[in-house]
Amino acid sequence: MAHTIKIAAAQLGPNHLTSRREDVVDRMLRLLHEAASYGAQFVLFPELAFVTFFPRYVLTPEELEPFFEHGDLLTSPTTAAFFSEARRLSVDVSLGFAERTPEGEGFNTSIYYSASTHSILSKYRKIHLPGFVDPLPDPNAINQLEKKYFQPGNLGFTAFRAPALVGITTEHSDSTKVPRSSSEREAMRGDPIFGMIICNDRRWPEAWRCLALQGTEVVFCGYNTQGYCPELAGTSPHKPQTKAEAEAAALVDHLLVMQSNCYMNSVFGVCAAKAGLEDGNFDLIGGSSIIDPKGKILAMTETRGDEVIVADCDLDEVKYGRSAIFDFDRHRRVEAYALITGQTGVVEPPFLR
Amino acid sequence: MAHTIKIAAAQLGPNHLTSRREDVVDRMLRLLHEAASYGAQFVLFPELAFVTFFPRYVLTPEELEPFFEHGDLLTSPTTAAFFSEARRLSVDVSLGFAERTPEGEGFNTSIYYSASTHSILSKYRKIHLPGFVDPLPDPNAINQLEKKYFQPGNLGFTAFRAPALVGITTEHSDSTKVPRSSSEREAMRGDPIFGMIICNDRRWPEAWRCLALQGTEVVFCGYNTQGYCPELAGTSPHKPQTKAEAEAAALVDHLLVMQSNCYMNSVFGVCAAKAGLEDGNFDLIGGSSIIDPKGKILAMTETRGDEVIVADCDLDEVKYGRSAIFDFDRHRRVEAYALITGQTGVVEPPFLR
Repeated sequence: MAHTIKIAAAQLGPNHLTSRREDVVDRMLRLLHEAASYGAQFVLFPELAFVTFFPRYVLTPEELEPFFEHGDLLTSPTTAAFFSEARRLSVDVSLGFAERTPEGEGFNTSIYYSASTHSILSKYRKIHLPGFVDPLPDPNAINQLEKKYFQPGNLGFTAFRAPALVGITTEHSDSTKVPRSSSEREAMRGDPIFGMIICNDRRWPEAWRCLALQGTEVVFCGYNTQGYCPELAGTSPHKPQTKAEAEAAALVDHLLVMQSNCYMNSVFGVCAAKAGLEDGNFDLIGGSSIIDPKGKILAMTETRGDEVIVADCDLDEVKYGRSAIFDFDRHRRVEAYALITGQTGVVEPPFLR
Repeated sequence: MAHTIKIAAAQLGPNHLTSRREDVVDRMLRLLHEAASYGAQFVLFPELAFVTFFPRYVLTPEELEPFFEHGDLLTSPTTAAFFSEARRLSVDVSLGFAERTPEGEGFNTSIYYSASTHSILSKYRKIHLPGFVDPLPDPNAINQLEKKYFQPGNLGFTAFRAPALVGITTEHSDSTKVPRSSSEREAMRGDPIFGMIICNDRRWPEAWRCLALQGTEVVFCGYNTQGYCPELAGTSPHKPQTKAEAEAAALVDHLLVMQSNCYMNSVFGVCAAKAGLEDGNFDLIGGSSIIDPKGKILAMTETRGDEVIVADCDLDEVKYGRSAIFDFDRHRRVEAYALITGQTGVVEPPFLR
């Protein structure tokens, strides 16, 4: 019996300050259709999919607010048709957006939409917000103000099961074929376990481990990654880079953390970029990819524009690593890990006498 | 002022069941001299440096015991001259060995030897022991019996400061040039912070993070890594590999975890293999390397025999990452990490109704 799901990542080319949300959603619909035409059962879209990467700008509250979504995406006039189409195609979707809660809090959020239930099954709010609360003093610097515009996510790294993807034919999914009882689902290894992270989270092994400890089989990660950004690249001032060098290095770093964390957690990883030159000035890397539990890249985008990639992911491959070298129960030694939760920053040993 | 230290990794070619410990130490002395001739201030030797990788064998207690060291390496007849020579050359050394304590416990251990104090500054006992307690049922299988022959390390992941390496000239170190007071040392960024892990530990991000949270600037990792080993490779039975494919994959995995964990912790990594064909049958990978805090390989061995590599490591490079994207104090969110210390194995979400 096949335990394979066909997964797609839909990379978006640049959005701009002048881009209309309706036009972005039209592009996303085209990518959704393309993914469905390949038989994809799930499509991942990027972080902050509907807008330009606005945390690079210093914005007044009035300028900021239009970048946020304020209601239910499934019924919002701009996005309702997108999810209805996903339902019609029987394709699950995950995407990122700036969330404004009724209480006025802002989060960098991803949701998982299930076509078979036509509902948002799970929501993740980005925990590792990069950058600074305050704008950089240099007026020419590229800011990274996620810590100013968003609060750290308050929903944890929470894995969840999704129906109607596994244990069915690789034809477009049809909820009438989903087994009904838990024992039936379990026998078919139905209800695969997914987890979401966003962008900078992928550089933090804690995020991956928390999801893997819940049995996550596929981690989804949308991102917007600046090719050149000293804060992000950790670039030494002693070794200035050209823009091309910095972009190449950012792509290397991105793949390094995706591949290694997939391997060290024996999990599939799917990542989707918003890529290309935004607002005429800001280069975002591509490199959207689908990676297997050994860290091998199964598919990767070739452009920095709108582009769909797909791969067949046999969820049984997760089990091999987790029953051998990465059998957590047999090998992890939690008594030695106290510092990881016991302290946030660095505490150095004292100097020698 | 230079905060650069010249670090060497001394890869060892194979040892055999028939190898005499004296001959192995002679080879190590030659590598030590070679490293010193390059101006190295520190040399890392492999895990279980003196012996063949005996945990692959099912051994009686009588057969097992000769692989262990039973006394103080600095005064043992076999190894005393090695450390005296390191002292004479003013080169610090780290190496791995099978430790039998006076109480009869067995550990897979590394020590850090300081030439300026002629003492063992720090000891690490391997925490992530791979493999199984019991031999595999298949008589043709390659066993991995570290869990049988060793107990999990009980000294934690403990970073330590070493004197006489930083803030001095790059000539062979001379303890008389080491500043005496803490403030002098601090001003010169003296007393660099080191940490040790062993082999399989490098695949566990928890090990790296515990060391990085103590400000570790260089992580040392000796290893013996079988090219083909289903337990280690987590190989899917659906995708059998040739021996050559398996060895290539093992090298890829090794570098992936070394480079990514250096990057995600903004730390230098130095790793030294015991490599080559042991006992005529068991192929160990090479790939001894020195890696910078961006994950870039500065030096790597080209053979699977005795071979020294050196690199200049500017410890200031650690600071850039840790003050930017990997500024733990600013970015880590320990409130979201409870599962990492709260549970050992996987706990899956329930099946859907």
